Amino acid sequence: MSRFVLRLLGLSLLCAVSLPCASADSPAAAKTPTPKELLERSKPEEWRKPDPENLLLMQLPQGRVMIELAPDFTPLHAANIRTLVREHYFDGLAVIRVQDNFVSQWGDPEDDDKGDKSKLRSLGKAKRTLPSEYTRPIDSKLPWTALPDGDVYAPEVGFSEGFPAARDKASGQEWLTHCYGMVGVARDVGPETGSGSSLYAVIGQAPRGLDRNLAIAGRVLQGMEYLSGLPRGTGPLGFYEKPAQRLTIQSIRLVADLPAAERGKLEVLRTDSATFAALIEAKRNRRDDFYKLPAGKIDLCSINIPVRGP
Amino acid sequence: MSRFVLRLLGLSLLCAVSLPCASADSPAAAKTPTPKELLERSKPEEWRKPDPENLLLMQLPQGRVMIELAPDFTPLHAANIRTLVREHYFDGLAVIRVQDNFVSQWGDPEDDDKGDKSKLRSLGKAKRTLPSEYTRPIDSKLPWTALPDGDVYAPEVGFSEGFPAARDKASGQEWLTHCYGMVGVARDVGPETGSGSSLYAVIGQAPRGLDRNLAIAGRVLQGMEYLSGLPRGTGPLGFYEKPAQRLTIQSIRLVADLPAAERGKLEVLRTDSATFAALIEAKRNRRDDFYKLPAGKIDLCSINIPVRGP
Repeated sequence: MSRFVLRLLGLSLLCAVSLPCASADSPAAAKTPTPKELLERSKPEEWRKPDPENLLLMQLPQGRVMIELAPDFTPLHAANIRTLVREHYFDGLAVIRVQDNFVSQWGDPEDDDKGDKSKLRSLGKAKRTLPSEYTRPIDSKLPWTALPDGDVYAPEVGFSEGFPAARDKASGQEWLTHCYGMVGVARDVGPETGSGSSLYAVIGQAPRGLDRNLAIAGRVLQGMEYLSGLPRGTGPLGFYEKPAQRLTIQSIRLVADLPAAERGKLEVLRTDSATFAALIEAKRNRRDDFYKLPAGKIDLCSINIPVRGP
Repeated sequence: MSRFVLRLLGLSLLCAVSLPCASADSPAAAKTPTPKELLERSKPEEWRKPDPENLLLMQLPQGRVMIELAPDFTPLHAANIRTLVREHYFDGLAVIRVQDNFVSQWGDPEDDDKGDKSKLRSLGKAKRTLPSEYTRPIDSKLPWTALPDGDVYAPEVGFSEGFPAARDKASGQEWLTHCYGMVGVARDVGPETGSGSSLYAVIGQAPRGLDRNLAIAGRVLQGMEYLSGLPRGTGPLGFYEKPAQRLTIQSIRLVADLPAAERGKLEVLRTDSATFAALIEAKRNRRDDFYKLPAGKIDLCSINIPVRGP
C-alpha cells in the first residue's frame, strides 16, 4: 500500500497498521475515550494562557522552543533568566551537549570552572550565582492534583501550578521533578553556583535522582523535538567535541517583550481541571481494541500536559 | 577557557564544570564509588559474551546498532527474527517512524493493514504472525536480581538473564519491561498479529503501559544514539511524511553468520554479578561533592546495564 493511500485512510487505521500507538486516536470501538476525544470536550476555562513574563521563545535553526518558567518554585532563577534574556545573553550561544537518555544542555561554550564566564561577566545586571531553590514549603491553599499509584522516589507526587511535582508532608516541602522536558539549571560543584546562564532539558528516562540536587527553572511546552532529536555528542558526558557540531541559539526572548502580533496564543491545559483528571484516568486504564490489558497505574513522568495553539 | 584546555583538564573537572553529571567520574573526594571505579574492579567472570545467535548487527548510515535478542522470554519471535535476518528481509528497509518521547520504529514502508506485506510475503520461511509471548512462567531456578524500592506498575521488578523484567508471584508470570532501549514487536490490532518484521526501540520515558500488551524481542546494547538522535517524524504518530526522510537500513546480520574476524568482542555485565549490585547501590545512594542528597531509591528503568568492547 502506498503512503498516499495510507494517509487517506486516516489516523485510526494508521494506528492499527503501525503500532504501538501512544497518543493518537483509537479505533472506533475504543472503550476508553482517546485523548483527542477528551480534549475536544474540554471547556475554554480549563485552559490557561501562561503569563508572557514566564514564557521564553528560544529560536533554533530548526524551529522554536517554548519554555514556561516556574517562578512560584524558583523565583530567583526566573528573575535572573528574565534579566539574562533581556540582556540578550543567550543570543549566539549554543546547545553544547546532548547526552543520550539524559539531557540536552545549552549555554556559553566558553564557560569554565573558575567563574570566568566571559559573556556573563560582561553583562550588567544578571547574577552569576544564586541560592539553590531546590524545594519550597507546601502551600495548602494551592490546588494539588495527587496521583493515586505511588512513586519510587517520593512520598507523594502530582501536579502543582501546571508542573509535575513531589511532596513530603513530613518535611512540609515540595519540589519540581526531573520529568521529560523539564528544564533544569546547570551548575558547578557547589549547590549555590547556578544562575540560569546554562540550562538543560531532560531527554530520556526521568533522572529523578537529580531531584532536590538541582534547581528546575521550568518546562518545555512546545518544540521539545528540536532539543531531543539531535545527534548525541561524542565527548565525555555528551559534549560536542567540535564547535561546528554545536547548534547555535539564534535568540531567546521573553514573550512579554514581543510585539502583540508575535506573541502567539499558546494555551496549557490546567492540571487542576476535570479534563486533565479524565486524561490521567484514561491513560491509567486504557482499554481498546489494541490495549487488552490496562496497566491500572501510571507514573508521574508518563503523563503529558496538553498544550495547544500556535 | 578553550575546549582544548577543558579536555586537557580531564573528565572529573569537565563534570564539575558542566553539570549535571549522569554517569561519569566524580571528583576525587567522592564518597560513593563511581561507575568507572566499580567497573575497573570487576572480575572477568562477571561479564558474559552474548550468544552470537542472539546478537543482531544493524548497519545504519551513521553507525552500527547491536541488539541482543531475548529468546528465553520470546523464543518464537527470536526464531522468526533470525529467519527474517537470514533471508535478508531487513536489508534496504528503513526507520519509518520516530515519535518523540516514545519510539523509533523500523520495517517495510510498504506494509499495510491487509496483511499485504509484499516483501515479507515474498520470503520463504519467515512467519507472518506469531503467538503473543507477552509473559512467561517464573522459573525459580534462574537468577533474579530484585530491586528494593518498588515499582509503580508491577508487584516486583528486577533483572533476569540480563534484561529488566517484572514479576507477579500471584499469577506466577514474569515479563520484560519497556525501558529505554528495549526493542519491541510492532503489530496490528490483534495480539497475535506481530512477527518481528517491524520492530521499535523505546527512546523516551519508559512507556510501561505497553508491558504485557506488546512482545519484547530484546534490547539495544550499543548504538542506541543512532536510533534516538534522529529528527522526529512530523506525521501522525511520528511517521516520516516523505520517503526521503526515512533512514535506510543497510543491513541486519546475525553475528553468528559473520566471519570470525568481524564478530567483535562485545561483553555485557552480568545482572546477577556483585559488581552490578554495587552499581545499583552506588546509584541509589550517590553522594559526592556534587550530589548532596542521595535519592536512596532507584527505579527499574533508570539502571544501565554496562556493555564493553568493540
